[in-house]
Amino acid sequence: MNSTKYKIINSLYLKKKKEINSQLEKIFKKREPQSLYSPASYILKNGGKRIRPMLLLFSAKVVGGSFAKVKHAALAVELLHSFSLVHDDIMDNADKRRNLITLHKKYDLNTAILAGDSILSIAYQELLKDLNNNSKNSIDIFTKALIEVCEGQGYDKDFETLKNVSIKNYNLMIQKKTAALTEMCCHLGAVLGGGDKKQTNSLKLFGRYIGFAFQIRDDLLDITGDENQFGKVSGGDLIEGKKTYLLLKALEVAKGNDKKMLMKLINNKGISTKEVTKYKEIYYRLGILQKANKEIERNTKQALNYLNFLEDKEKDKLVWLAKFLLNRTN
Amino acid sequence: MNSTKYKIINSLYLKKKKEINSQLEKIFKKREPQSLYSPASYILKNGGKRIRPMLLLFSAKVVGGSFAKVKHAALAVELLHSFSLVHDDIMDNADKRRNLITLHKKYDLNTAILAGDSILSIAYQELLKDLNNNSKNSIDIFTKALIEVCEGQGYDKDFETLKNVSIKNYNLMIQKKTAALTEMCCHLGAVLGGGDKKQTNSLKLFGRYIGFAFQIRDDLLDITGDENQFGKVSGGDLIEGKKTYLLLKALEVAKGNDKKMLMKLINNKGISTKEVTKYKEIYYRLGILQKANKEIERNTKQALNYLNFLEDKEKDKLVWLAKFLLNRTN
Repeated sequence: MNSTKYKIINSLYLKKKKEINSQLEKIFKKREPQSLYSPASYILKNGGKRIRPMLLLFSAKVVGGSFAKVKHAALAVELLHSFSLVHDDIMDNADKRRNLITLHKKYDLNTAILAGDSILSIAYQELLKDLNNNSKNSIDIFTKALIEVCEGQGYDKDFETLKNVSIKNYNLMIQKKTAALTEMCCHLGAVLGGGDKKQTNSLKLFGRYIGFAFQIRDDLLDITGDENQFGKVSGGDLIEGKKTYLLLKALEVAKGNDKKMLMKLINNKGISTKEVTKYKEIYYRLGILQKANKEIERNTKQALNYLNFLEDKEKDKLVWLAKFLLNRTN
Repeated sequence: MNSTKYKIINSLYLKKKKEINSQLEKIFKKREPQSLYSPASYILKNGGKRIRPMLLLFSAKVVGGSFAKVKHAALAVELLHSFSLVHDDIMDNADKRRNLITLHKKYDLNTAILAGDSILSIAYQELLKDLNNNSKNSIDIFTKALIEVCEGQGYDKDFETLKNVSIKNYNLMIQKKTAALTEMCCHLGAVLGGGDKKQTNSLKLFGRYIGFAFQIRDDLLDITGDENQFGKVSGGDLIEGKKTYLLLKALEVAKGNDKKMLMKLINNKGISTKEVTKYKEIYYRLGILQKANKEIERNTKQALNYLNFLEDKEKDKLVWLAKFLLNRTN
């Protein structure tokens, strides 16, 4: 992709992101009670990258659909994502996300539970606005992803207390927790955009592998990311003892004292803040960051392979998005 | 209705309830992770009356539909109801429901949040099984009720800290929290059963007023109900300072010392267990129980009026259900 093309797509992305943000803001404005919808509105102003609606919009476009006809569906997938973040943050007892105080900390637990529920309910309502005769199939796709997102979070919770989590277990977890959602965005975009079976299936798989890459990148940014840019505490996953790709890979390859240290983290369900540097060093020593990067690249490449059936001109936007995610720093 | 007819419908109800219970049990059996779905399954074994699925089944039947074609939709409305109970019980910090330990007490907060989410996601999946070309309208009806249930819970939360709640405010709250759901059950049943516009609209309104009656009956049972039968602590609403129909009506009519006592309850957001008898006496003295009963009867009558367009033979089941609810002791 040449740099002019890159710039054009980049400004299209920024334009669409702005539109999505302003539409999301409108959704909760006139609703009552405000005690419910203003917390919902707060959490949607988090300045996210809006990757999921973008996957949906670009997938619809790539099969010949129009942005205008899927704009509510695009909001719906962002709302579904936000619902899951609000509830996950409660479960993880997280203080911040994207430098913003989490909903249950800013308000209280009950407000956060209910606001999350509401955001999900509105997601369905938004989705319905873009549906006609294809309703059943579309809502089926959307609902399946919702179920999987919950299941993924269930596995993630299970992993907290399990001592033997393999990379295979991890893959199942992120397949449901992250990849099911990105897969759904592309799948639904393709269906609503009028894609044929082959196109739809390819885009669906593109979305799945992008999701895998995205999640491992997220795990990686916990170590390499700039705290202010990434919006989370550096090494936060280590502190909480999260079973990330990095930790599980390190456990696979570590020996001797490194292995002992890692097992200590597992047994104690985390480490203290001042130990973070020591554990980061283990990752560096074992080449875990390179391994994670390789895995991200492998998944991204796999995702891009599924776009082969499309003409260059059409697939540009999705290729751009894949690369944007590959190189993201937040 | 003669007693033979009554017995026939009563055994139909018991048969359908048994079927619903066994279907609900199957839903979560083969799903993974079990850490998520076995708590969901636990809460669905609560021995509820399954009023909402029954409203849906009978509404479908009354317009000429078959039970078989709406059985998944019937499960869906019970699942939606259960999702809201699980999350409400967290917000209310309730220990028991129907003599069963609430989900967040039996397991933990995070499990209850996520199990609630899952139950809702499965509700949509079940609903979809009974839909064909009417998908969009049906899911729209279902989703609107979900949104209202969340909003109703929002108002209910707001009322906790408000000192001036009127009966009008109360009506808005229960319209959303309770009546929107019973209305949806009848509405959806009528739509899926193939009812015409007039039938559908009448059944919808029947469902709404049944919901009002149901909620006020619930408020009343807090005072008059047998603790073991009702499954909640007698006077529990007084202890928690809940703005029930009884309390708001009492505030309207009380004077002098009674008024002072009631305002004390409002200001202190509840009373101690040993004060319950004293407050019950205020209710007795002011004739609040009769007033509540009158309101229940008024709403039930209103509901039954909307069935006038149906032939006697057809509407029997719904009349039976209305009376069953009117006289319920749990």
